[in-house]
Parts: sequence; structure tokens; C-alpha cells
Amino acid sequence: MNAEIISVGTELLLGAVVNTDAAIVARALSELGIDLLHTCVVGDNPARLKEAVETAIRRSDLLVMTGGLGPTTDDLTKETTAAAAGKQLTLHQPSLERIQNYFNEKHVSENQAKQAWLPEGCHVLQNDNGTAPGCAFQAENGCTIIMLPGPPSELAPMLHNYAVPYLKQSQEFTIVSHNVHIYGRGEAPVAQMMDDLMDGENPTLAPYANEGECYLRVTAKARTHQEADQLCQPLIDEIKRRLGGFVYSVDVDSLEALVVQLLGEQGKTLATAESCTGGLLSKRLTDISGSSAVFHMGVTTYANQAKEQLLGVPHETLEAHGAVSPETARAMAEGIVRASGSDLGVGITGIAGPEGGTPEKPVGLIYIALSDGKNTWVTKRSPIGRTKSRDWHRHCAASQALDMVRRYLSGLPVVAEHQYEGDKASRG
Amino acid sequence: MNAEIISVGTELLLGAVVNTDAAIVARALSELGIDLLHTCVVGDNPARLKEAVETAIRRSDLLVMTGGLGPTTDDLTKETTAAAAGKQLTLHQPSLERIQNYFNEKHVSENQAKQAWLPEGCHVLQNDNGTAPGCAFQAENGCTIIMLPGPPSELAPMLHNYAVPYLKQSQEFTIVSHNVHIYGRGEAPVAQMMDDLMDGENPTLAPYANEGECYLRVTAKARTHQEADQLCQPLIDEIKRRLGGFVYSVDVDSLEALVVQLLGEQGKTLATAESCTGGLLSKRLTDISGSSAVFHMGVTTYANQAKEQLLGVPHETLEAHGAVSPETARAMAEGIVRASGSDLGVGITGIAGPEGGTPEKPVGLIYIALSDGKNTWVTKRSPIGRTKSRDWHRHCAASQALDMVRRYLSGLPVVAEHQYEGDKASRG
Repeated sequence: MNAEIISVGTELLLGAVVNTDAAIVARALSELGIDLLHTCVVGDNPARLKEAVETAIRRSDLLVMTGGLGPTTDDLTKETTAAAAGKQLTLHQPSLERIQNYFNEKHVSENQAKQAWLPEGCHVLQNDNGTAPGCAFQAENGCTIIMLPGPPSELAPMLHNYAVPYLKQSQEFTIVSHNVHIYGRGEAPVAQMMDDLMDGENPTLAPYANEGECYLRVTAKARTHQEADQLCQPLIDEIKRRLGGFVYSVDVDSLEALVVQLLGEQGKTLATAESCTGGLLSKRLTDISGSSAVFHMGVTTYANQAKEQLLGVPHETLEAHGAVSPETARAMAEGIVRASGSDLGVGITGIAGPEGGTPEKPVGLIYIALSDGKNTWVTKRSPIGRTKSRDWHRHCAASQALDMVRRYLSGLPVVAEHQYEGDKASRG
Repeated sequence: MNAEIISVGTELLLGAVVNTDAAIVARALSELGIDLLHTCVVGDNPARLKEAVETAIRRSDLLVMTGGLGPTTDDLTKETTAAAAGKQLTLHQPSLERIQNYFNEKHVSENQAKQAWLPEGCHVLQNDNGTAPGCAFQAENGCTIIMLPGPPSELAPMLHNYAVPYLKQSQEFTIVSHNVHIYGRGEAPVAQMMDDLMDGENPTLAPYANEGECYLRVTAKARTHQEADQLCQPLIDEIKRRLGGFVYSVDVDSLEALVVQLLGEQGKTLATAESCTGGLLSKRLTDISGSSAVFHMGVTTYANQAKEQLLGVPHETLEAHGAVSPETARAMAEGIVRASGSDLGVGITGIAGPEGGTPEKPVGLIYIALSDGKNTWVTKRSPIGRTKSRDWHRHCAASQALDMVRRYLSGLPVVAEHQYEGDKASRG
């Protein structure tokens, strides 16, 4: 099955918005085993959109459209695509009612109501996060057409909850994918280690990089889900054997999700004390629904005074070593354990940039400490290679903190430059 | 001048990588006043790439290619494009020497050397951040072709430092865009209010939605930057007149950036006390480089005990009204002002979901308080219409808190259900 994505929106051609929709859809198609051969972007221009849709219907088995389903007059995707596919638009009453409910009004404006007009005979894809429904239908030549709304927060759930199940019905085979998540080894060396495993046809193995982490996707095709699963298992076991503790999960798709899960299983709690990450670690932990059971308190102590006051970081430590030092990171982690009464505490301090670096303490230098109230480990992140962004440094520091907690909770050695036992410090 | 972007790389079609290159190039073209009519993605497949390049050369005045200039065998952009444009590749000696210097080796591998082979007679675009040079040249029919490397950290500087100056030589007009950012009114009603202004040709006006906010883009074309600017100004003034305090900025592209700027200008500081947003507000404030001057402290008090201990929220308030109540939000905001010594404090408490809702306190019910140590305002966000995601509730609550701070600092009335003056409470 050959697929094509057309993303609609002048804002994409102006570079005001990055086309994340195309990447989200592309990944879902890849997981379904559907070959994506083309993606393109068209502005809010009926003539060019018509041309692109006609070309796609002619050459592809599946066309996914993103964007242009909204209430304004430049939202033209439905009208143009339906016309190109030889379909009329008809009012879909349940969608109109959803829109009325959304606004708590019996009579919504004509613009809003326009969203409930859909191609005749289509399968409606409900929008649980906005007003514009999506739809799926077939053009006269058999090309399947799916339309999804532009905002990623509406597109992603609609895609995964309604469009993917719709596509799965028409597939002969079941495809099962498992993602083996890795922290602490990059995509290139991991790919090299797995080189001899990459040529398989069923299951297949592919490496992906992802914001300072990487993962290997194992995919198998079979008549049943169970058969496909059984094809994946030996390859997953071999990957784990080769990578050991660097594998942090199969299918738990973030370090924060895993850490919340492990804390919950072990009845432990975690607290955070952040400086340069500014609440990002706390935010990532609380992204996980149910984190309130294991995460009771976090503090962002940007100013030195806040570090002293909230965490009891000794004034002398800040004076002697500076805010960006292993000593301060340690004092922050130990301070938040004391202040919160949690089992574990993390302290992060560093220079996220782009300002504030010096030759001795360059942008990207970040210390991360983990304390269990008895032992404390401190790791150091140094800037390597060329300049990275503030976001990058912050994200990687938060990830490394999560990995330290993950290793601690999994009984693996916590990788650290410094380890402090009780009152004694040792260099690991 | 009509332009087209072709991005090359199978990783883009697999959804492993988001196509930020296209957005970076699109924005640069937009700023140059070049109309971008098409962008597409092609995998590492010579036949489909050849077809896409031939189509582009036929229909566009400018073709920008991104990616596929590297050393590996699936990097085919140059060979394929040069052939389609009727050009031979020749060795560019200075580029070879740059590659040798990059690796500190006199003899680099054939793969690496391949990058120094460029279309005959082209204008070479130097790569200051990697090995693969870019180039600009004209096809036989006059279409200008520019090739840029795929990694954004190499593409962006090459584009801005070498490709844009090359393109400017041939441009007659300059395009200027300004974004008018709006909080508190959605895209649809804003578009309706501006309906009569949307038909202009120079300047043009277009509405965009963006994660619970929206903005209007005003764009004008003229001989000089200043003339284009002058064309935009009356339209911007009219938008501001119609929307009043709902316009939060022209060209400051987030509430957090504006709040950090306003705090800095007024020499004020802000502290945050978050429950359901879990550090997101703190994270967004510290996304802004330089926020450390105005943001010294934030706390995430997920547990009631943490609210009492860190913020001095009275035990009785939590008992009588519950953690999700205007009274608790108020006590959190006032508590963080006391604890931090900051000028302003924000408290956020609510139910982000998907678990934890009750009929009386449903998912999405969030109270947000702002205190200046004397007066305190509390607003209530109620879930409207259908279910939104945890991310959505958290994002919108943080945005609303920022908008309250923005209104306070701008001397506008803070929109609030409850206002407490000193010790007296009044309902606004």
C-alpha cells in the first residue's frame, strides 16, 4: 500500500509552523507497514490544492490530508478534496450536535457549523479535543482518503484512536511493533552494535534517535497479533543481552513514565530541586497521570537565596564552590530529601545558556545529584562538540536525572563521577 | 518569484525526524518576499527524486533542496539534481581542502571526498558547521537551484550567511510580516471580528490558532523594509483598537516572553506555586533566557502537606474547602509571595486529569490566583464542552496565569471571579 500526505496551510509555507503533523502521521503509517512515498505542503489555495489532491488520488492507494478543516473561510480542505474525489458534502447531524455542545449553545455560527459538513457516505472520525471532525472515505478509483485536523493536539488522538483502527481493518496482516528504549548510548553506536541484526525481513529492526535518547523498533508481520509478538521476542532478548543496563524499557516510552511506574511499584517517593532546568523535571514527572502518588514536592531554586532558604544549601558551599558545582548539586539533593521527607531527592544545577557561560564553567556544564538520604551520587554533563540549544541542555539534564533514579530503583549501579556515602566522599 | 522546497531523506518519510529544515527555509523565503507554493519530501530514491526535481524545475523559478549532500551512498541529491538540470559534477578543490582540514587528514575517504564534487559553474555555499558544502546554480531554463545540507545546525547558518545574500541580489521587493498575539479570544470569533479586513491585498491579514491562543499576521510588500512596515502599521492599529486588552503583543511570540520582558522593565520579580501544572509554569518562564533576573523561586506542591509546609496554606483551609478551591489557590499565591519575598506570586490548583475528577470538581476545574502581597485575584477555569487532554488543561492554566500577570503589569484590569483586598474578600 503506497501512501501520500498532503498538509494544507499557508502558515506552513511561511515557515510560521513546523510540520509536526506530517511526522506524526508518517510514523503511524510506518508502524502499520504502509509505505509513505510522498509528502507535500500546499497553501490555502484551492487551485493548487486541487492539483495536488488529483495527483495523489491518481498515484497513491492512501491519501492522508492534514489541516484546513476549521471554521474560517480559508479552511478549504474538505470542499476541495471532496470535489476532486467526486463527492458532495452533507450535514452530519451528530457532529453538529458535538459542536453545539462544545460551545454550550444551541445555535452556533455558520462558520462553526460548516465543520459538520462532510463527504457523503464517509466514516466520521470524532474529534475529542476540538470542534472539527475528521473523516475517511474512498475516491471513485479506490484511493482511500483520510482527513485530519491541523492542530497536533487534535490530530494525534484522532489518528491513534480512530484513523489507525480504521486503516487496520483493511489490512490483511497484523503488524506488531515493540520499541526497545535506550538511554546512555547514541543511535550511531547502537546501530553499529546491531548491524548484523538489521537485515532481517520479519521481524525488522530499525534504530531511531529521539531527543538525546534512542530506541530500536522491532516489527513483525503475521496473521495474528500473538504470532507477530512471538516473532519479535527473540530479537528483543538479543538486543537486551547486547545492551544490558542501557535498555531502560520495552514499550514504556519515556524515562519519566518508567520512573513513576517503578516508584509506584516500590512504594517510594521522589522530590526534585532544580536550578537550570527550571521546573522541567517536575513538569515531566507530572506529565504522567497518577504521578501525585509518588511525587509530592518539587522546587525551582533559581536564586542562591532560594537554595539556602528552601533547601538549606550552606552559604559557605555556594561561596566556596559556586552555584554550579558538584557540592551544590549534592546539597540540593540532600536538602530536598530533608525538606520533603521523600525517599529520593534529585538536585540539578548548571548553565543552560545561551548566556552565562565562562571559560571555566561553559554553557552546557550541568551537575546532577541523586540522594537517598544516606548515599548521594553526582554526575557531570559537559558540553561536547558544537553548540547545542538551551532546550537541549535542559532536556538532557532532566533525562539524565531520571536515568539515575531509574538505575537506582532497578538495582543497577548509578553511573556517577562522585559518590558520597553518609559523610564520606569517594570518587567513583 | 515562485519557489519550491524539496526535502530529501527516507527518515522524514518514516516520521523519525520532523522536517524543521522546510520551516527554516520557508521562513527565510517569506522574509525575502519569495512566494513558496510547494514543499515536498522525497525518500532516498533516485527515480522519485528525479521526477520531483524535474517537475520543480519546470514550474518554479527557485528550487531549494535540503538534505542528501552527505558522504553516504544514499546521499543522492547532488548527482540526481545536477543530472536533471543538465550539469556535470566537478571537483571543487577548496571544498576538498576544507574537508581534509575538518578531519585533520591529508587523505580523506572517497565517501568524504564525494562531498566536494559540485555542479559545474555553481556558486559554492561554504559549510561552517560540517563537511558538506552547499551550492547555487541555474538550470538551463533559468530556474535557480539551491542545495543545502540536512542537519538544521548546518543548514540554518549556511542559509542565513550565504544563500540569503545570494538570493537578495536578484530580489526587487521586500516583505515584512508582523504577528499580533491575542489571549482570551479564540481564532473563530477574532476572524469574524476582522472579516472586513481580510480581503486586503497589501497588506494582507490572516488568522492563526496556536495552543489555546491565536494570532493575526499582517504582511506587506514594498520596495524597502521601511515602506512595507509603514503599510502594516494602520492595520495593526485597527486590530488593536478592535481587540483592546486581548492583544498582548506585536511580535513577542509568547506570554512567557512578554511577562519576563515586562517584569524586567519594571524591576519586579515573580514566584510560582503550582499544583496541577506540576512545574510547567516555572518551566515556561525559565524557557526564556535571562529569566533568572526576574524569577527566583518556584515550587511544585503536589501533596497537601507540601502546601502547608512550604507555602503555609492553613490546614483548616484545605480541610474546609479542599485542595482544589479558590481559597487554596489564594493561600498558595499569598504563601509564595511571603516565602520568596517576590513582588508577585501565582498559585495554581486544579484537576488536570484524566483521573481524579468528581461531579462537583470535574477534570479541567482549575483555580488560578495572582497576589501582589496586598491584593489577590482568583480566576476559575471550568471544563467546557468535551474532554480535553491533561496536557491541554495544564498548558491553558499556565497561559491564563501568565495572562493575569501580563494584565497586572500592563495596568489592565485582571479578569477574575474573586478579588481579595487585604483581608476583605469581594466577588468581582
